[in-house]
Amino acid sequence: MAASSPSRRRPGRRPGPTETRAAILTAARDLFAEKGYDGASIRAIARAADVDPALVHHFFGAKEALFVAAMEFPVNPAKVLPYVLGGPRESTGRRMAQTFLREWGRPEARGPLIGLLRSAMTNEQAAEMLRQFVSAAILSRVGDRFDVPLVRIEAAAAQMIGVAILRYVLRVEPIASVSEEELVELLAPTLQRYFDGT
Amino acid sequence: MAASSPSRRRPGRRPGPTETRAAILTAARDLFAEKGYDGASIRAIARAADVDPALVHHFFGAKEALFVAAMEFPVNPAKVLPYVLGGPRESTGRRMAQTFLREWGRPEARGPLIGLLRSAMTNEQAAEMLRQFVSAAILSRVGDRFDVPLVRIEAAAAQMIGVAILRYVLRVEPIASVSEEELVELLAPTLQRYFDGT
Repeated sequence: MAASSPSRRRPGRRPGPTETRAAILTAARDLFAEKGYDGASIRAIARAADVDPALVHHFFGAKEALFVAAMEFPVNPAKVLPYVLGGPRESTGRRMAQTFLREWGRPEARGPLIGLLRSAMTNEQAAEMLRQFVSAAILSRVGDRFDVPLVRIEAAAAQMIGVAILRYVLRVEPIASVSEEELVELLAPTLQRYFDGT
Repeated sequence: MAASSPSRRRPGRRPGPTETRAAILTAARDLFAEKGYDGASIRAIARAADVDPALVHHFFGAKEALFVAAMEFPVNPAKVLPYVLGGPRESTGRRMAQTFLREWGRPEARGPLIGLLRSAMTNEQAAEMLRQFVSAAILSRVGDRFDVPLVRIEAAAAQMIGVAILRYVLRVEPIASVSEEELVELLAPTLQRYFDGT
């Protein structure tokens, strides 16, 4: 707790780690909502929480992880992307389809994911925040892996978002009921073609 | 107007065509909302509007056209599908991508289309109605044209719905700004592959 800023504290108040962590998360939620993902700096979040920026890094690491924690983002890109992007290039489409369907298939992730999509579709502020986060934490990293225009990565993302909407939100049959394996077979070549630039 | 049911009319009341048409549309909206697209019959809508079913057919033709009119559905599948499905099979993907982007590109259609998607994503009754209509009026007809499992038609629809969300609703760059022609080039082979069953 030595890293917290004593000059800004009222005398006699010494918050514990749980309280400090909660204060950072609250400040992060406020600032991400107010300034968007790109506009909210770790420094500004630390200032709003009345702590030292080093303490934010100590608790959460990078801004991306702070966003995941503060917004309760149900999928951590830092955990799933290394698997998707790390294997052989020619089977990336398959790993991406598998990972996307597995994450949406988890009941504890699906509700929050649908909630995020609904918010982004009905609220411009939520859309802006999600757009910036997904661009910085997912799309641009996938783009860095492949030497193809970013619009191709977004076409691949569009394919999977559309599948999630038909399968999990609108529940159109038969796509709502076919197995994950069958869907992976169907979708992997589409994603792979976008990544291959062909 | 001889087709209206005189036994159910109060004496002295003789509605004109405009009034009758409006009564049918109101009854259709109510019944589509209450019973869904499949569950609302022309007969039941006519009964609710207190007119003869033949008059509903006279004004609107098939149930699909009545739905388009009553729900102010911004794209008439009966008008766009013959073009998409009528040309050479090997260029169907291209015509579908072109038509989808052209319809979403019309400012007077885009707002209502986004509205429908938002409603379907936040309201189960709206989702059910849209799901049944899109299945009957679009997906099953495209499926009839190609001898492939319906899940492939839905994967193609998912690609285009995802593109609409990223391009027109969330406005992620660069997919929000690239030309329709560039997107058609990018997406047509994906759609074609689903239709070809390869």
